[in-house]
Amino acid sequence: MGTDGVMLKDVAAAVGGTVEGDGAIRVSGLAALADARPGDLSFLANPKYAALAAETQASAVMVAKDWTGPCPGALIRVANPDRAFIHAAVFMTPPPPVPPPGVHPTAVVADGVRLGEQVSIGPFCVLEAGVVVGARTAIGAHGYVGHDTTIGADCRFYPLVSIRERTRIGDRVIIHNGAVVGSDGFGYAPDGGRWIKIPQLGTVEIGDDVELGANVTVDRARFGKTVIGRGVKIDNLVQIAHNVQVGEHSAMASQVGISGSAIIGAHVQLGGQAGIAGHLKIGDGAIVGAQAGISKTVPPGAFVFGTPAMPMDKFSDIRAHTNRLPELKKRVMEMERRLAQLEAGRPGGDSGAT
Amino acid sequence: MGTDGVMLKDVAAAVGGTVEGDGAIRVSGLAALADARPGDLSFLANPKYAALAAETQASAVMVAKDWTGPCPGALIRVANPDRAFIHAAVFMTPPPPVPPPGVHPTAVVADGVRLGEQVSIGPFCVLEAGVVVGARTAIGAHGYVGHDTTIGADCRFYPLVSIRERTRIGDRVIIHNGAVVGSDGFGYAPDGGRWIKIPQLGTVEIGDDVELGANVTVDRARFGKTVIGRGVKIDNLVQIAHNVQVGEHSAMASQVGISGSAIIGAHVQLGGQAGIAGHLKIGDGAIVGAQAGISKTVPPGAFVFGTPAMPMDKFSDIRAHTNRLPELKKRVMEMERRLAQLEAGRPGGDSGAT
Amino acid sequence: MGTDGVMLKDVAAAVGGTVEGDGAIRVSGLAALADARPGDLSFLANPKYAALAAETQASAVMVAKDWTGPCPGALIRVANPDRAFIHAAVFMTPPPPVPPPGVHPTAVVADGVRLGEQVSIGPFCVLEAGVVVGARTAIGAHGYVGHDTTIGADCRFYPLVSIRERTRIGDRVIIHNGAVVGSDGFGYAPDGGRWIKIPQLGTVEIGDDVELGANVTVDRARFGKTVIGRGVKIDNLVQIAHNVQVGEHSAMASQVGISGSAIIGAHVQLGGQAGIAGHLKIGDGAIVGAQAGISKTVPPGAFVFGTPAMPMDKFSDIRAHTNRLPELKKRVMEMERRLAQLEAGRPGGDSGAT
Repeated sequence: MGTDGVMLKDVAAAVGGTVEGDGAIRVSGLAALADARPGDLSFLANPKYAALAAETQASAVMVAKDWTGPCPGALIRVANPDRAFIHAAVFMTPPPPVPPPGVHPTAVVADGVRLGEQVSIGPFCVLEAGVVVGARTAIGAHGYVGHDTTIGADCRFYPLVSIRERTRIGDRVIIHNGAVVGSDGFGYAPDGGRWIKIPQLGTVEIGDDVELGANVTVDRARFGKTVIGRGVKIDNLVQIAHNVQVGEHSAMASQVGISGSAIIGAHVQLGGQAGIAGHLKIGDGAIVGAQAGISKTVPPGAFVFGTPAMPMDKFSDIRAHTNRLPELKKRVMEMERRLAQLEAGRPGGDSGAT
Repeated sequence: MGTDGVMLKDVAAAVGGTVEGDGAIRVSGLAALADARPGDLSFLANPKYAALAAETQASAVMVAKDWTGPCPGALIRVANPDRAFIHAAVFMTPPPPVPPPGVHPTAVVADGVRLGEQVSIGPFCVLEAGVVVGARTAIGAHGYVGHDTTIGADCRFYPLVSIRERTRIGDRVIIHNGAVVGSDGFGYAPDGGRWIKIPQLGTVEIGDDVELGANVTVDRARFGKTVIGRGVKIDNLVQIAHNVQVGEHSAMASQVGISGSAIIGAHVQLGGQAGIAGHLKIGDGAIVGAQAGISKTVPPGAFVFGTPAMPMDKFSDIRAHTNRLPELKKRVMEMERRLAQLEAGRPGGDSGAT
Repeated sequence: MGTDGVMLKDVAAAVGGTVEGDGAIRVSGLAALADARPGDLSFLANPKYAALAAETQASAVMVAKDWTGPCPGALIRVANPDRAFIHAAVFMTPPPPVPPPGVHPTAVVADGVRLGEQVSIGPFCVLEAGVVVGARTAIGAHGYVGHDTTIGADCRFYPLVSIRERTRIGDRVIIHNGAVVGSDGFGYAPDGGRWIKIPQLGTVEIGDDVELGANVTVDRARFGKTVIGRGVKIDNLVQIAHNVQVGEHSAMASQVGISGSAIIGAHVQLGGQAGIAGHLKIGDGAIVGAQAGISKTVPPGAFVFGTPAMPMDKFSDIRAHTNRLPELKKRVMEMERRLAQLEAGRPGGDSGAT
């Protein structure tokens, strides 16, 4: 958005709403009610947050058509404030830069590389022999694509992405800056106190509609392939080790680590910084809490937490008991005192009066 | 430092100290007393470590003017050994390379990019349209700066840093190799078993005097902006998610992960590998222990630890009780035995003699 | 491997085995018995997995010469199925790309850089003044090597590796994409509510036969040097802070974080996501479990787990007691009830009949 922002009446027109207040004021920022400052547009989708609307610093707020309540800012009345706010945000935000089609003159593209129509290859990219890139895919500046790697159509790789040889990548895949796909798996055989490197001969296969965050690492398989299923979403700084299989439409938050040969089911959700040991299965639809450490198979649909992980309800129960340990200890000590009194023939317990 | 090092008397002169022993010997390394090897210069700041001085392999040791004690190496006597050691280190170390001013001929700089005086743009850098770079800022080799991003004066970006479009960066900001600023936030809406990407329309704003470590990732906001306040120091491999706000002069150690929309106060310290859940507040001056998992708001000035995190003194208390659980279990079993005896009409307890 | 694969009889010939079944079928993939699909070659090394062989979908399986049992696929009989499978994998896999010797015409190599024979410098590499590269070392595309850094012979750096100034790297070192060596240590002095940067004047020294994973970060020392000993293997996204010393032939899994000045012994193994606090020693041969948090010295040969870490057997004991806390609580409550009865003069306990 420009520094001067846009006129409120133009935003209202763009989202099919009506202004209540001064439509000529300008809004340049977008923020939640509690965070908004003058110049911002905000929204009230859930009436239970009306108190925030009454105190917001936002210059304007999107509200439902029939909402009534105090608000210091101008209003835009719409049918659905939540959705209209997204439309307003798109309207107010400059469109993201579109990579220009064509091969930048500085790029180094090997003979025989096959590029689909409208492909964009950025400055200083390197595409090795045998690479195939599908139509309309854009590879950002400083991208590296190794030998015989195939990339589908409509993909978007941001700058500084590197993909090693013989990787297979589907359509509409988004890869953020600094991500690495196809690095060697971590495999060594002990040999008289040294580690002998085991060749990592496999590949990586990434399905359609996958998104990999910034500085993610995905290792190639020892044999066979590491597989990221269709529609999987992976946040920044996640590690996917050799021979891991991730089922379709699973999602993992930042800094998750998955060890070699683990099998993650479909529709699984892994919380941030969770760790999965090698050769395990996480069942379809399971949810793994943040920072959990998974050391044995998780059944489908389970919700687990802790290190080592256990079902969430059991974790909560054990945690509650643990937090009351000092109290339990006192009760035990008190019983010991009363027991000693009884044993000494003084059965009166606390009263001591008998 | 050169392989031959420098003469001890030259070091002494540089720091305003006096040599005791052979000033013509050469020192080439710098190390703590316990780690030092022949050829190293070390220092004794705290007299309680005098025993280490007596056994050090260092060729020379910086000591206080009035310190007496055995030391096999030569001495440099100074008023403040701690500070003098830093000065000696600067004297003995070759000055760090200074990026040459100017735009390297291989760099790709879009028309209309505005560069301040004495700016250094390294080999293979890419600066997109609308970029503004302040005076004396240096962008290392393979740097990428996206459209309409503004960078202040006196910044230092090491090689392979990438900054996405519309980011705002203050003055004197240091960004280490491989760091990524402005990648898309991790935002999806569930839709019939698939994840629909939510556009990440916001930006990132980084204050003056911030330092970002190697391979750090900072995501752009969904709407509005992700904010790293003035003077914040962030270690390697840290993740800052979309819409996070970090207050001034906070510091976070390596591999910390902060989830979306969390608000970190000023002067906060986060230990290594700590994780902060989304939409939480960490109060000003709070300290979060290493590997802690924060799942609810932390009050200002608190010191918390564990997953889920709790105040450090409570954590220590619970931990101590937990570690004595086997003993508590034994006491309970013993009471059960004594209780059964009492119930059987034998009140004598352990003695059994009554 | 080509899409059509290779004939089974050719695989058998390559590994010195004999075909049992149709040697003319083609195999193109390699997989474990449980994961194999038609077209795959698998192997049975341990007879206890014979049940998997009976149900595998693999087109062919390598088995021991004297093994008998049902298997739907063709067999290759060999003396040692485990080893023969590796040989078969090498035979069936296209050889990894070999970096072409010579300096790519796009590379920027400073005057006076010394390159050994048969060195390969990839596209868009930057080698600063004073760099020395040993014979047959290959530096992949977009590599950055800072001033006065020395790299040994027969090293392999994958694309987008950056090494800061004055680093020393041994022979046969492998560094994967995106790794950073020599970034500044995280060192600041508090000064009236701000952080003052402490100059990081030291270097990094990496021994022979070390391997660093993708997006690993290794910080330079404050003074002296950060040291990675000979034969050390480090997985993706690991953080090695300033002044850390890692002993020979140690190995650390992905996302480990080692804080400043920690000393890791030789032959140590660190599990994934483990964290080591600063200034600690991990003794030779110690094993640190995944996600463990080490806050005090670990003796040689110990196996520790948990946060804060403790010996594995103690951790398991405490964990078992903790998981039975709800039961212990019930026993305490039951005793309290019985004790109250005794105190009231009804010694009969549960029966209540007396």
